Amino acid sequence: MMRNILLTIQYDGRDFKGWQRQEGTRTVQGRVEEALSKFTGIPEVTINGASRTDAGVHALGQTATFSGDFGIPLENLKDALNNYFSGGKNNMFAVGDVYIKDIKEVPPDFHARFDCKGKTYRYIIDNSKTPNPFRRDYTYQVTRPLDMERMRKAASFIVGTHDFKCFESAGSIPRETTVRTVYRLEVKKGSGNDIYLEITGDGFLYNMVRIITGTLIDVGLKKKEPEEVKDIIEKRSRSNAGFTAPASGLYLKEVYYREEKLYG
Amino acid sequence: MMRNILLTIQYDGRDFKGWQRQEGTRTVQGRVEEALSKFTGIPEVTINGASRTDAGVHALGQTATFSGDFGIPLENLKDALNNYFSGGKNNMFAVGDVYIKDIKEVPPDFHARFDCKGKTYRYIIDNSKTPNPFRRDYTYQVTRPLDMERMRKAASFIVGTHDFKCFESAGSIPRETTVRTVYRLEVKKGSGNDIYLEITGDGFLYNMVRIITGTLIDVGLKKKEPEEVKDIIEKRSRSNAGFTAPASGLYLKEVYYREEKLYG
Repeated sequence: MMRNILLTIQYDGRDFKGWQRQEGTRTVQGRVEEALSKFTGIPEVTINGASRTDAGVHALGQTATFSGDFGIPLENLKDALNNYFSGGKNNMFAVGDVYIKDIKEVPPDFHARFDCKGKTYRYIIDNSKTPNPFRRDYTYQVTRPLDMERMRKAASFIVGTHDFKCFESAGSIPRETTVRTVYRLEVKKGSGNDIYLEITGDGFLYNMVRIITGTLIDVGLKKKEPEEVKDIIEKRSRSNAGFTAPASGLYLKEVYYREEKLYG
Repeated sequence: MMRNILLTIQYDGRDFKGWQRQEGTRTVQGRVEEALSKFTGIPEVTINGASRTDAGVHALGQTATFSGDFGIPLENLKDALNNYFSGGKNNMFAVGDVYIKDIKEVPPDFHARFDCKGKTYRYIIDNSKTPNPFRRDYTYQVTRPLDMERMRKAASFIVGTHDFKCFESAGSIPRETTVRTVYRLEVKKGSGNDIYLEITGDGFLYNMVRIITGTLIDVGLKKKEPEEVKDIIEKRSRSNAGFTAPASGLYLKEVYYREEKLYG
């Protein structure tokens, strides 16, 4: 009997060329599909992820669906996958770069991407004064002090439904519309000297979170005024916005399937 | 005029095959020597490190000396080195895996290794229940709960001057003596679910800190009794001690040149 399965996946993006399967390249989709095929016995498994994260981008809660006819109970499948990702039972030092957080059966027509109502991304800026060699693939370190109040002010102009063409990488595949809704954009203290940007929206243009981050960093460093952000959005040109912050700081935090979740 | 220089160096050991220079391999010593040669103009620079850390081992405060006749002021040399390690001025995402914390002139006969009175290593155990894919090269994750009180009790038997042959990897190069003094061995809470083992001694045998860590983890997991450690030391056999904990959790924290520092 066909079963439709929803996976919630955490991964360290450092050693992956992004989510999307590509022949001959290590991708998260490829790795998860290969493992699923091994333990379900289905020769070719295709999973549909909610987000096609780029090379170096991490996930705390990516979601993906796949369907197939297989017998292994889901709890056993979860354990088998995690054991496989961490290098097998005999490896004492067993933490892999992919970790299946949750696995469950969903209705036959449920699809991780098409049914997605929105997502939250977290961007981690390490604002320590002294360079920290140990987290360079997991944060973006800005050693000059960032003014969080200015960043919050600038963020307030981004929240809402706008045409966000200014925050889309030049050369992106043309979309039907560049209008998106940002429900929340928080600039908050993380642990130590970390600053978290957390953004929830119904959908994101290519590199949108990283360009918003670069723009807010410019504001935090006093290279831009918070009020300029209004103007940047109105002018609809990528060239007015800030730089594209690196992939290392970006985490897909959560994917929502119920509207009410979007409002926090 | 010849100058003798002491460097204090932080590094992420992940992508290095350890400290010691080896032809055709990326090592910390090789990388620092190459950069020093570039900015001092001395064709071949040799640095002497206080500790020959293994592949994957990190440093918060390794020290090394070198001497040579060169003109560049030390503050400029420090900036040039750090800029070079981080990929150069045009790299916005500029944190390298080596960072020179301090550079200073020392008397001509001062030697980073021979004058060393002792060292502190920190071992980071991540005792979170759920595997954390993001720190697997920077900690050793033990997902079962560790009893810190038991580990502290076991640690108390290690402090002092003992023949530590039991904590030396089999096949190590024979040494004049396997007697060493451990001045302090603390088992303490780090941030989050981290447990830090901090050990200060006059010198360490090959893999000694990692084998002590493996032994204390066995005690923390109740596979060994704290009191067994006395017996393990007395018997002088590697086979009675615990496993060698992985390099990923180990940090050379500090090197001491004055005796009084050893007592904390």
